[in-house]
Amino acid sequence: MTFPVVGMVGGGQLARMTHEAGIPLGIRFKILSDTPQDSAARVVPDVTVGDYRDLETLRAFAAGCDVITFDHEHVPTEHLRALEADGIVVRPGPDALVHAQDKGVMRERLARIGAPCPRNRIVASPADVAAFAAEVGGFPVVLKTVRGGYDGKGVWIARSAEDAEEPFRAGVPVLAEEKVAFVRELAANVVRSPHGQAVAYPVVESVQVNGVCDTVIAPAPDLSDELSGQAQALALTIARELGVVGHLAVELFETTDGRILVNELAMRPHNSGHWTMDGAVTSQFANHLRAVLDLPLGDPRPRARWTVMANVLGGDYPDMYPAYLHCMARDPGLKIHMYGKDVKPGRKVGHVNTFGDDLADVRERAHHAAGYLRGTIDE
Amino acid sequence: MTFPVVGMVGGGQLARMTHEAGIPLGIRFKILSDTPQDSAARVVPDVTVGDYRDLETLRAFAAGCDVITFDHEHVPTEHLRALEADGIVVRPGPDALVHAQDKGVMRERLARIGAPCPRNRIVASPADVAAFAAEVGGFPVVLKTVRGGYDGKGVWIARSAEDAEEPFRAGVPVLAEEKVAFVRELAANVVRSPHGQAVAYPVVESVQVNGVCDTVIAPAPDLSDELSGQAQALALTIARELGVVGHLAVELFETTDGRILVNELAMRPHNSGHWTMDGAVTSQFANHLRAVLDLPLGDPRPRARWTVMANVLGGDYPDMYPAYLHCMARDPGLKIHMYGKDVKPGRKVGHVNTFGDDLADVRERAHHAAGYLRGTIDE
Repeated sequence: MTFPVVGMVGGGQLARMTHEAGIPLGIRFKILSDTPQDSAARVVPDVTVGDYRDLETLRAFAAGCDVITFDHEHVPTEHLRALEADGIVVRPGPDALVHAQDKGVMRERLARIGAPCPRNRIVASPADVAAFAAEVGGFPVVLKTVRGGYDGKGVWIARSAEDAEEPFRAGVPVLAEEKVAFVRELAANVVRSPHGQAVAYPVVESVQVNGVCDTVIAPAPDLSDELSGQAQALALTIARELGVVGHLAVELFETTDGRILVNELAMRPHNSGHWTMDGAVTSQFANHLRAVLDLPLGDPRPRARWTVMANVLGGDYPDMYPAYLHCMARDPGLKIHMYGKDVKPGRKVGHVNTFGDDLADVRERAHHAAGYLRGTIDE
Repeated sequence: MTFPVVGMVGGGQLARMTHEAGIPLGIRFKILSDTPQDSAARVVPDVTVGDYRDLETLRAFAAGCDVITFDHEHVPTEHLRALEADGIVVRPGPDALVHAQDKGVMRERLARIGAPCPRNRIVASPADVAAFAAEVGGFPVVLKTVRGGYDGKGVWIARSAEDAEEPFRAGVPVLAEEKVAFVRELAANVVRSPHGQAVAYPVVESVQVNGVCDTVIAPAPDLSDELSGQAQALALTIARELGVVGHLAVELFETTDGRILVNELAMRPHNSGHWTMDGAVTSQFANHLRAVLDLPLGDPRPRARWTVMANVLGGDYPDMYPAYLHCMARDPGLKIHMYGKDVKPGRKVGHVNTFGDDLADVRERAHHAAGYLRGTIDE
């Protein structure tokens, strides 16, 4: 067997679902996990437990792999450059991945390639923030740590200069962005391979609650063909210009005046693509693997008129298994995806997918199941 | 987490694909595998290597499981009774499974419940075979070892009494069956849970080559609603009467005079159900797990007009991975399922699924991919 070995850095649910997608391809899959209890470490046989911030740990892990890829963006860029200098195949490579690691680098590069973004500037003090606010029509403005933020962490809404002090206390670089007036959030997900083949999934609507993705609707309802085509072309352009290999999620704002602006980039399988596991001919995980192995990409087209993904967050009950009885009996078409993580309030511990022809029904089924598993619905 | 532990006896591809189906359910999955290189042992973390014919090995394995199920039917019936006497939950239980282990017991029981079967009799000598042949219209007749046969092994076509000697040399019980005049083979697959819920998949056509399943077409083309309904009702009746828990495959002959006769029974996920992985709302593997856990069963309905499964047999090339480039580039909708087994000529090492609206096209795509992977097609 010369089936390749794919090494994924990170043991979270993205690595878990990538293993699931790799089994039918016969891919040999290894992970570098923080602990033996991580989501993926519970289902993957070949687990290295170690710290991804340690270069020697990364080197030892990579030595047994044909290609290295990622379940998160937190590996230090300089370590990835060192691995490439060792001759390790790293996909996506550090020159691409840095744009998903550093929001300052990302904004600067997107501006150069003409990708529409909210107005933004690196700021060093509340005074800088006040000056920036004055230029973009006043407070409130959005402040983000340049590195390490996710799911609302590392993000602040500043309503005044006084209100803008906290982000600077950590002493890390801060990016100020105009607070965009948007009607909804969209995601344009594409997959690109080293030789330049790329596929675009249908543009989806992402509904956020408290800064965390709650629901994804595929395709985005009532999105004009023009805006949908613009979003897909934009994501394909970003993937090409930044040299992305693998799955790229481009999170977008649809503005009140009918434009799309880039909010965030993720260069890995992404929550906004979980619907593809049951809703597309080829899932984001299978296509990410095919891309990092430079195999021809799979058909990204939807298999149903509507697919809805709802995240399952931890609630007050530590064990969600008993809820399976009600959820599965109520909806035989429900697709449950649990991550094998210990339940903590608000933590993403799984998601559900539903599909069908009637959007209202498909949404209700997904929301009911996610709420029942969490414990916020009891019928 | 009180998610249950399912223990599957056997480390073959059925256990491998059951693990794949169990990951999204958060099920904890263990296997008892003959070797660390078995198909499932390559992708499952919790592997016990041991001999399923040894009761103490089975007892030690079962001790860590909430329920025991199977990837093959070869576990001695008396061992399963001993496990049940220990209080282990065994699904399907020995009283059901014996009908898939012993063709004599199966034929006798099916006759009692009125399930249509080829005429048959236990025979002890070539003279018995000749007498049976005279009763059923003469030679040729089919001879089968009562236990242990599969994929054409343990089956003989006797054209005369002299031709009927080999099966008796092994000294094991032999079943004689009339050689049925059939137009094609069908399979009616159902899943039943302990509390009696059952679902029926669409009846499929199974195309055999040299006694090995080559292609499965779902649903069976040009099958009358009447015969389809009869086949599904027959499989549901057998599952209920025999007390089957889990997936039951009922292999059928469609006779030249328009009847259906039971050929074989399998009480586990089955080759004739592999199409469900990409072609049905709920796969046979997910429903087998739900059944043995007594969870409500999933929707068995098809997701496409036509789904075709083609087995990938080992050919002359030890490594099939390079063939992925051509197969994936030619058909972005192709679904490849490899088992991680070393390639040996004629050995089942994987399967492919294709789906769509045009049966001729869907069949051609499946046959091309299976042939190209095997090495019998080179364009």
